[in-house]
This record gives sequence, C-alpha cells and structure tokens, in this order.
Amino acid sequence: MECSQQSTTSNQMAEYEASYDDNATVSRRIERLSLHLNPMEKPHNGGLDLVQCAARAKMKVNMEQLSIYMRGKYRDDVQQSVYDYFNSKPELQTPIEISKDEHRELCMRQLTGLVRECGVRPLRYVVEDPSKYFAILEAVGSVDMSLGIKMGVQYSLWGGSVLNLGTKKHRDKYFEGIDNMEYPGCFAMTELHHGSNVQGIQTLATFDPITDEFIIDTPNDGAIKWWIGNAAVHGKFATVFAKLILPTHDTKGTSDMGVHAFIVPIRDMNTHKALPGVEIQDCGHKVGLNGVDNGALRFRSVRIPRDNLLNRFGDVSRDGKYTSSLPTINKRFAATLGELVGGRVGLAYSSVGVLKIAVIIAVRYSLLRQQFGPPKQPEISILDYQSHQHKLMPMVASTYGFHFATLHLLDIYSEMKKTHDEQLVGDVHALSAGLKAYVTSYTAKSLSICREACGGHGYAAVNRFGSLRNDHDIFQTFEGDNTVLLQQVAGDLLKQYKEKFQGGTLTVTWNYLRESMNSYLAQPNPVTARWEGEDHLRDPKFQLDAFRYRTSRLLQSVAFRLNKHSKTLGGFGAWNRCLNHLLTLAESHIESVILAKFIDAVQSCPDESSRATLKLVCDLYALDRIWKDIGTYRNVDYVAPNKAKAIHKLTEHLCFQVKNVAKELVDAFDLPDYVTRAPIGMQATEEAYSLYTQYAGF
Amino acid sequence: MECSQQSTTSNQMAEYEASYDDNATVSRRIERLSLHLNPMEKPHNGGLDLVQCAARAKMKVNMEQLSIYMRGKYRDDVQQSVYDYFNSKPELQTPIEISKDEHRELCMRQLTGLVRECGVRPLRYVVEDPSKYFAILEAVGSVDMSLGIKMGVQYSLWGGSVLNLGTKKHRDKYFEGIDNMEYPGCFAMTELHHGSNVQGIQTLATFDPITDEFIIDTPNDGAIKWWIGNAAVHGKFATVFAKLILPTHDTKGTSDMGVHAFIVPIRDMNTHKALPGVEIQDCGHKVGLNGVDNGALRFRSVRIPRDNLLNRFGDVSRDGKYTSSLPTINKRFAATLGELVGGRVGLAYSSVGVLKIAVIIAVRYSLLRQQFGPPKQPEISILDYQSHQHKLMPMVASTYGFHFATLHLLDIYSEMKKTHDEQLVGDVHALSAGLKAYVTSYTAKSLSICREACGGHGYAAVNRFGSLRNDHDIFQTFEGDNTVLLQQVAGDLLKQYKEKFQGGTLTVTWNYLRESMNSYLAQPNPVTARWEGEDHLRDPKFQLDAFRYRTSRLLQSVAFRLNKHSKTLGGFGAWNRCLNHLLTLAESHIESVILAKFIDAVQSCPDESSRATLKLVCDLYALDRIWKDIGTYRNVDYVAPNKAKAIHKLTEHLCFQVKNVAKELVDAFDLPDYVTRAPIGMQATEEAYSLYTQYAGF
Repeated sequence: MECSQQSTTSNQMAEYEASYDDNATVSRRIERLSLHLNPMEKPHNGGLDLVQCAARAKMKVNMEQLSIYMRGKYRDDVQQSVYDYFNSKPELQTPIEISKDEHRELCMRQLTGLVRECGVRPLRYVVEDPSKYFAILEAVGSVDMSLGIKMGVQYSLWGGSVLNLGTKKHRDKYFEGIDNMEYPGCFAMTELHHGSNVQGIQTLATFDPITDEFIIDTPNDGAIKWWIGNAAVHGKFATVFAKLILPTHDTKGTSDMGVHAFIVPIRDMNTHKALPGVEIQDCGHKVGLNGVDNGALRFRSVRIPRDNLLNRFGDVSRDGKYTSSLPTINKRFAATLGELVGGRVGLAYSSVGVLKIAVIIAVRYSLLRQQFGPPKQPEISILDYQSHQHKLMPMVASTYGFHFATLHLLDIYSEMKKTHDEQLVGDVHALSAGLKAYVTSYTAKSLSICREACGGHGYAAVNRFGSLRNDHDIFQTFEGDNTVLLQQVAGDLLKQYKEKFQGGTLTVTWNYLRESMNSYLAQPNPVTARWEGEDHLRDPKFQLDAFRYRTSRLLQSVAFRLNKHSKTLGGFGAWNRCLNHLLTLAESHIESVILAKFIDAVQSCPDESSRATLKLVCDLYALDRIWKDIGTYRNVDYVAPNKAKAIHKLTEHLCFQVKNVAKELVDAFDLPDYVTRAPIGMQATEEAYSLYTQYAGF
Repeated sequence: MECSQQSTTSNQMAEYEASYDDNATVSRRIERLSLHLNPMEKPHNGGLDLVQCAARAKMKVNMEQLSIYMRGKYRDDVQQSVYDYFNSKPELQTPIEISKDEHRELCMRQLTGLVRECGVRPLRYVVEDPSKYFAILEAVGSVDMSLGIKMGVQYSLWGGSVLNLGTKKHRDKYFEGIDNMEYPGCFAMTELHHGSNVQGIQTLATFDPITDEFIIDTPNDGAIKWWIGNAAVHGKFATVFAKLILPTHDTKGTSDMGVHAFIVPIRDMNTHKALPGVEIQDCGHKVGLNGVDNGALRFRSVRIPRDNLLNRFGDVSRDGKYTSSLPTINKRFAATLGELVGGRVGLAYSSVGVLKIAVIIAVRYSLLRQQFGPPKQPEISILDYQSHQHKLMPMVASTYGFHFATLHLLDIYSEMKKTHDEQLVGDVHALSAGLKAYVTSYTAKSLSICREACGGHGYAAVNRFGSLRNDHDIFQTFEGDNTVLLQQVAGDLLKQYKEKFQGGTLTVTWNYLRESMNSYLAQPNPVTARWEGEDHLRDPKFQLDAFRYRTSRLLQSVAFRLNKHSKTLGGFGAWNRCLNHLLTLAESHIESVILAKFIDAVQSCPDESSRATLKLVCDLYALDRIWKDIGTYRNVDYVAPNKAKAIHKLTEHLCFQVKNVAKELVDAFDLPDYVTRAPIGMQATEEAYSLYTQYAGF
C-alpha cells in the first residue's frame, strides 16, 4: 500500500505552462481566447507572494480572551477532574487494539472508577444541574466514546426513565443504586422489528389481578428487545417498554392501554445469572462502541410486581383499573417519550465535542504537513492549498456555530427542567431533535473529510479518525433516526406556520417566521438582489434574512404542495411525496437557528479582538451556506448573478483569512494533548513527526 | 444504546392534519394560503395508492438477460473459482473479530492458498491478460479487502515494478519467485515526509564504482520509508525508490540523476531476519486493512549489486556512466511513474466492486424493513419513502454507470499494454487518474450513506458496512491522493484545450471538447433552455450536451482565470487560486465520460427489455447529476426556471421508477449470498431476520 504514485503537481503546472509556448495562428476570436493561455514571462515567486499575502491578511487573535469566551462553565471544574483522573490512570486508558470482551470490562471499570474514585455523581447532576451532567458526558466521550455511551445508558436512559417516568417510590428505591453503579441497568425500548416506530412495539405487559403482577412477554421473534446497552453483560435491571394489557369484563377480555414502561429485574443480584424467563443474547460486534455490551432480551412470562410500572403518566390500581392525568393513548405516549429528550440534547452536545477533536487534529496536521511548492522554493503546508482550506475552514466555522447553538440548547433544557414552561418544552423538543439530527450528520461527514485531509497518516489508527468515526457513526441513528427527527422539525414548523395565520403565539425559536414570512410574500427586491459590496454581504442582517427567506419559502411552498397532493394521495401519501422537500425545510430552519445563535454569540463577546475573530468565522459560516444553496436563491432571483459571484469570491477569501488564524481557532477549543491524543495533532506541531516515529519504534 | 425514542411519523402527520381543523378568519390573502393547510376530509388510503401506483409504474425486467449483459467475461471463470475456493475453506475466511497479528497471518495464508492451491497465477495475468488479473483482484477484495490489497502489493506494485521498470535480467531472476509467493516483496516509495510529492523523496542510492554497488541510505527521519505494505512481517525484497547519485570528476563530486527504483533484499531468505543495515518497524494499527502488514524501513549504508537497478529507463555502466533513452530527469520520472498506472486501474475497478456489495445489502434490507405506514394500514417498506429512494436510487444508477466506465478503462488499459499506442497511453493515464479519484470518493461517501440507510442493523459488524468502509477508506489516498489526481486530469484538459485551438489532434477521451467548445462559445439557446418535455429531458443528446457544456464552460473560464492570476501570482499561485475551480472541472469531465460510456452501454445492449431497464437507470444518473449542479446551469440560463423544475420533478419520478425494479437491479450484479455475506442483505430477503436472530444465538 502506497500513499502516492503520480507526477507531482508542480510538474503538472510546469507542463501546463510549457505547453503554451508556441504561438497559434488561427482566427481572431480564437486568438483572443488563446490570450488567456499565454506563457508566464517570469517566475513570480508565487509561493512567496502567498506567504506575504498571508502575513498581510492575518488577523491578530487574543488567544487568552477567545479561549476564556469559549470555555464552558465546567471546563475548569468537573471536566478537568475527569481529564486528570484518566490521565493519572494509564490502566484505565483504552488501548488501540482491544478485544470486544476486554473492552466491555475496561469500560465498566472506567465507569465505576469515575463514580467511586473520581467522585462524580452523575444521577445527582441529571436532577440538579443537567449542564454539569452533559459536560461530564462530553469529557468522558473524549476519553473513550464507549464510556460516554455506557454512562448515557446508565444515567440518561436507565436512570432517566426511572426518574422521569416513575414516581417517588421508584426514586426512593433505585436512586442510590443507580447513582453508585450498584444497579447497572438497561433501557429496553427498541425491538428487532421496531426501532423508529416505537408505537409499533409488540412486547406485552399483562396485568394479573390475582397475583397483583404484570406478566412480561415477547410474543414473537420480531418483538425481541434488540441493541439493549448494558444487557449483554452488566445489567441487573431493565426499563422495558411494553403494551399494557388490562383484563376487561367484556367479551374481548382484555384492553390494550398503549406503550408503558416497567422496571424488570433481568439478572440475579448475587449470582448475576439471568433470571427465570429472561433469555439474554449478545448482539455481538458493532461498527464501533464495542466497549458497550449491547444485548437482546426475550421474555417468557416474566412476572414483576405491580409497583414496577413506572406510573407517572398512567397507573393501575390493585383491582386492575387504569388511571391517568392524560386523556388519550397518544397524549400519554407523547408525554412518556417527551421526558426522554435529554438523551438527544446530550448527543448533539457530545457530537460537537467529537467534531472539535477531529478539527483540531486535521488543522494542526495540515499546517505541519508540507507537500509541493513553487519551482525551486521550499514546499508549502497543505493548508496553504485552496482546496484544503475549502475542506476544513467552513468546518472550523461550523464547529464554532454548533458550539454556540448547542450551549444554547443546554441552557433552555436546564431552564425547562426547572420551570416546566410549556412553550419551552416545545422549543426544547424541536430544537433538540433538529440539532441532534443536523449536527450528528455534519460531524459524521466531517470525520471522513478530516481523515482524507490528513492522507496516509490520517489512516494510522493512533491518529484517531477511525475510532472517532466508527464510534460516532451511530449518533445519526440512535435516540431518533435523523431522517425521522427532521420530519418532526418540519411537522412543528408547519404547525407554527398555521398558527401564524391564525394570530396565535409562536414559540421563541420560530418567532422569526412571523417577520420573514411577510417578506417572502413580497417579491424579492431587484435592487438589493444586486448589492455585492463586502459590507453588505458581511452584514448579519443580510445573512440572517437570506437564511430565513429560504426557510420561509420552503415552508410556504411545501404547505402548498402538501395540500395539493393530499387530495389525491391522502395525508400519508402527500407527506411522503413531499418528503425531500420537508427534510430540506427542516435543515434550513436549523441552519437559521444556528446562524442566529452564532450572531448573538459574536455580539455578546465582551472582548473586542475576540469579537472580530468570531465575526470573521461567523461570516464564513453564513456565506458558505448561502453559496452552497445558491441555486435556490438564483431560481427566484433573490440573488442576481453578479451577487452570486461576489458571494462565491468572498467565501473563498474568508476561507483564506480564517486559514491564517486556524491554529489559534482550534487552540481556543482548549483541549489538552492528552485528550486529543493523536501524535499528528499535537499543539506544538513541530513535535508531531518525532512523536510519530517514536510510536512506530524508531 | 437505543435506536429510537421519538413520536412516530404517523403521529407527526396525524398531529399536523389535526391542527388544521379550525377555520381561521383572517384576511383574504391569508385565507387563500390557509387553503393549502385544510384537513383531509377522508382517509385516502395513501399507502394503498402508493402500492397500486408502484404496480402500475413497474417495469418488467428480464433478469436473465440483464444479468448476462452485466457479467464480466471472467465472472463464470476465474471469479467463480475464487468464490468457490474460499467458500470451501472456512478456515480461510476472515472472522469478524481478529487481532492485527492474526489477521496478517491469515491474509498471508489466504494469498498463498490462492496461488498454490486454487491455481491462480496472478503475475502471468498481469502480463498476458490484465483484465483477468483485475477480475481476480475484485473477487478476492470481496472475500477480504486486506487480501485484495496484499495481492495488489505483491503483484501490481512489487511484481509490476520489476516487470515494468526492470529489464529481461530482472524478469528472468524474479518472475517465478514473485508469482509463486516465494519472493514476497514490497514497494518502497512513500516516505514519512513525502507521499504525493514523489520527486521530493530523499532516500539516496549512491554508486560505488570500486565495488560496483549502490549504497542505499536514509539521510534523515523524514526519509524513512513509511506505510510499506508487506514490510512489517512478510517481505523479503523491496523495490526502493531513491535518488540515484553518481560520482563525477568535477568539484561537486557527485551528481543527482533523479528518482530511480532499486531491488533491495530486506530479509534473509532462510532466517527471515532483517538484513544488516535494514531497520524495519511496524506502522501499527490502521483504520482498516489490518490484514496488510505495513512497515517502515530505514537504510544504513545497505549495499546492493549494480544489477539491482531497475534499468529500463536509465542505466549505470560499470564505470559509473549514466545512459538513458529519455533526455531529461522529468521525462524519466514521468515514464517511471507512468508504468505504474495499472494500480489505479485496479483500484477504480475494485472500488466499484465494493460499491456493488454495499448497494446490494442496503437495497435488499430497505425493501425488507418496514416502519410506519398510513393510519390503520400495514407498515410500508422504508424504500417506499421518498427520502430513502433519494439516498439509494441515484447510487444504484451511479453503480451501473461506474461499472460500464471502469470496464471501458480495463479495455483500453489492456489494449495499451498490447499496442503501446501513445494516444492510448495519454487516455489511460488521465482516465485512470480521474476514475480512480471520482469513483473511490463516491464509494467512500456511499458506504456511510448505506450504513445510515440500514439504521441500527446497519451498525452490526456482521452486516459489513463498517469493515467495507474502514478498508476502502484509504482508496482515496493511496496510489495517488484523489485531490492530486484530479489536478492531473485538469492539467490534461488544459493541454487538450490549447491543442484544440492550435488544430492539433485530441486524444479519443477528450474528443468531445471540439464539438462542445464551439457550442459553448455561442450563447445558450433561449428556446431549448425552456424545453421541459419528458422526451427531451430523457434524450441522451440533451443529457450529454448538458454535461459537456458544463465541462467546456468550466474549462474555458478556468483558462481565463489562470491567465489573469498568473500575471500577479505566478504560475503556482494562479493554479492554487483556481484550485477549487480546477477540481470541479476535472470532476465534471469525468462525469461526462461516465455518462457517455453509460449511454453507449445502453445502446449496445442486445436485449430490448434490458435496454429499456438500463435506459431508465441511465436517465436517472444523468438527470440527478444535472439537478445537483442546477445552480451552474441556471446562472448562465442554460436551463430556464421552468426547465429546472421539470428536471427536479422528473428526477424524483425516475427515483421512484428505479425503486420499483431496485431488487432486480441489484440481483443483476450477480453476487452470491456467500460473497455479500451480510445477514440483512440476503437475496431471499424474507430469511434475513431469522438468519440474524440465529447469528445472535436465538
């Protein structure tokens, strides 16, 4: 395997230049065209020019201030403790090669160590300070993502379901054991045949009024609980989602009350053997996250006490009567799932953490790595190439944008947990769905781009892109498949759209629609459509207007199409016929939110110099996005051809300017070398190669 | 870890529909808009409609004929032998979990078994029938891609360098040993500091006229040979690329003759110990391909006989005089690297093989998997969703296009090896660079999309997306980094462009430029720009014209820009300033070639029914590509807004039609279940789930 085997690029260019030495004598028109292709008279020191130009364009970055502004409030506190703990315990660090079974055991030791030695009490923070909990999740994810996910299973899912779907009796009984890892548990929702469509699950929980128990049953192979984290090896309990079946006194004999959650002990507390009627199998190797022991569960008439129903939203009395504060199955189902939104918040936030690590490694190595250069001059760094800037600089900008947007999500989530404000609940639901889907898809793609950007050395396992990608990959699927989540965002937007026209209140996140919808209803302004000055293009108002115009237009047009198609295809068919359109709408909306939060963050930055740096990065984020959708803007003449060209040109220029401060921008993420770990991505880039040769044994 | 946790989509839609129950009384305009949002009066059996509509639109596919047309000439012959051999040897099949060291040994046993037991003689085919060699490479790649790459190292690289860069004495001495695996060897070109820029390598080969030997030296750590396949464990020899240094009688004392290749024994034939002066280290774990033992080599004054210079393009006499049939260092370098083009041909072809496996698995599972559906009706398959069709159907179409394009590449490569026709050499060089870059990038992205499309079950290692992606990933980097290769394509196009205006001959591949350049020089026709009929849009002439127009336009405009910028930035700076533009140009050209070959293949298909099927797939390929670049076409009014809309609509419709024959289209790739292997991707899809539960131990 070789990483090369071609003529050099400089050769390429030399040949190209040489090939225009002769003078062609053809028609006038052709001659004029040929002029473009004349030989260069003298070498122009292209590389030097580049460097000089770079020096001129380089913005001064106040690293200390920028770094302070970027540090979350738990960076010095609990995140540093986590980093220090693992840094001081080499035996708890995951080696590059480790078997699945060893990895699972190591991951368990990492988690118990964290709780019992490092003094972290995750379940407390879940209740008292969710932001602190998410900060730990992010930090442990950078140690080993398997640990992050195992912790999420234990605390967000198993712990979260007991806390949020249960009542006081459950908290009293399970809180301590979950928090101190004496009760490792699972969250058994997904079945072999039903992932996204949770209402389609088939596991049964039938009430037996004689013994005052529920009987948990897996009616067929398709209903086997599948992918259940913590189940294959470590779990003692599982929150099992099943249809609650109650006996009735009519001819039918039973009544299906819809999906409810039940605490089911799955292994003996002393012997750790599977309990009678519980069959546990191993889901085996996964693409990544092999430190998490995913298992499959089949239940054969497993009896649990009535008290094990997590009865916050619906309860069964001793005599088998059902009571609930919520009137319908659908409302109860929505309330039940609504409580689990924290998982998505955590994934969106952790995904940004993964993106930061990848971007740090790729940018530092691209500054270090030199390849080719102008004739008879030193080679230049690969980040000096336009194509490389094009790959990585919008990614740096997006990482900043996502950072601010997910911090905002954390804030409103924490606030919602405190106030239970209804508007906030709606906001958090839609924004967590949208950001989780958008950010994890973006990060997944970026991990591949970063690997490629680092060439052969990016393929060395020690440089981490492989494990980051494999571990992160499933972020796009679990806790809500991204395609399904984006449809929820689109559904919400359509609801808001309707409310606007009925004069109702819009929740905060969508408030902009009121304004931009009106501007959409007007035709695009042919004068501003031609404005191409840098001041105008870098005006946050222009940028935000453009983003929101796009969202509004997509929203209005999809509403029209849905209505049209529903007449012949029905609601479901119409929705499906417009599905691509709806997904684009949802993404466009999320991009609008990210930009708005980014602009806010720029404007709120107290340090003037850092504000200027952030403004530069934010402009790149905005214009790069507009350029990527330029077809849409052109199609409706929102942007005239001259403006389109100006946007393109400015985007390339901003890429170049951001490149000049790229090192500072990634350093400001403030992740120490022993966290990023890749030899090619060290902060002191000059040490990278020697670390790397040492690693190979030289 | 859970694969779900959200309200259902049907819920989403139900809510959306319900939310429009009330009548709003606002302004007339708003009322009119609100009409779009009215509730659906009756359920319309949307799902049923979908199914009925599907039945109506379903094309009849003649599976036997299509399959015959798609089978390469070696499918029944040597590929089937390879499949049968490994199918009959369970001990030679790579398990899901295997340590790096065991994998390397297994891979070696697989390769020697293939050569010594299965009767395959790869080096013979390299010489006598390259297409047969590439067919084997594709087949073994589907067994384990590590094996494919290890075989490529041994035969394409180590064997190929001896055959193509050496002379008769080398062939006589090494041919048999290489062919029968007694001489496992390496190809030591890449160094720690130099991958793409091969001319920058620093290893030295200094001639010692006293002993009639070359002295091979690694002058610094940056010159350590890195990523050398077969080096860490198995290799006995290496073709080492080094600067040839000859003594002179002037004051300088030595003269650098440029990069040459030398055969260097690295391990003792009997003891297998590293030879004196050869330091070998292990490059360690990689993201994938861990069955290949990549190592690093440092040479400390290693002496080799003068005969070990591979002297086809340059030789040194007993008294240290240099002779060559080629006049300059650059020409010799180009000739040397030019001989190694076969590696790229093989990669492009094998990459299509990987893409086929992934597409087969993803399509079959997406037909099997059901999730959600219209209210009170059975769930529908996920491939019935527009978004899912949008992900996978253009991918099926591209796979067909790439299949025909790479077969064409194999043909012209074989022809070139026979005739050494100069025009063909140029064609093969550019087309292999372009297709290798384009296809491997596309496949890499598609592997991620396929994993996501299969949700949680796509994340099970047994379903193969993880290993396919990890193994294939480096295809984008080795044998020429894709970004560098595309620049070579762009460079060639610019050369051809100039020749057109000088009346010279164009090589076959670019011949279309003569025609389309002229049409570009004219303004787009405002009448045809508005044509939107299906017949017109599905006319291959319209499609090919559109592709070529785009290429021509990009070519003309980049030539103009290069000329402009070279005045201030010099050649190198100008090239870099236009780099994104140049890469887009190269991709656009390759797409034009793929479409042309696709259209040829459709028209040459002897069976009428299969021709119609292929035409449908080809139309989707063409229109999907045009739609993806619609901004470009709109910007210059090549396509008017109404036509853009018609293209979009037709593309979605074609996705739907291709979906209706998707199973037949992937079945026609004719890969047996024991080759594709993923339980979720079995040909008899109904068995998939039960295979999968068995696999987990139920």
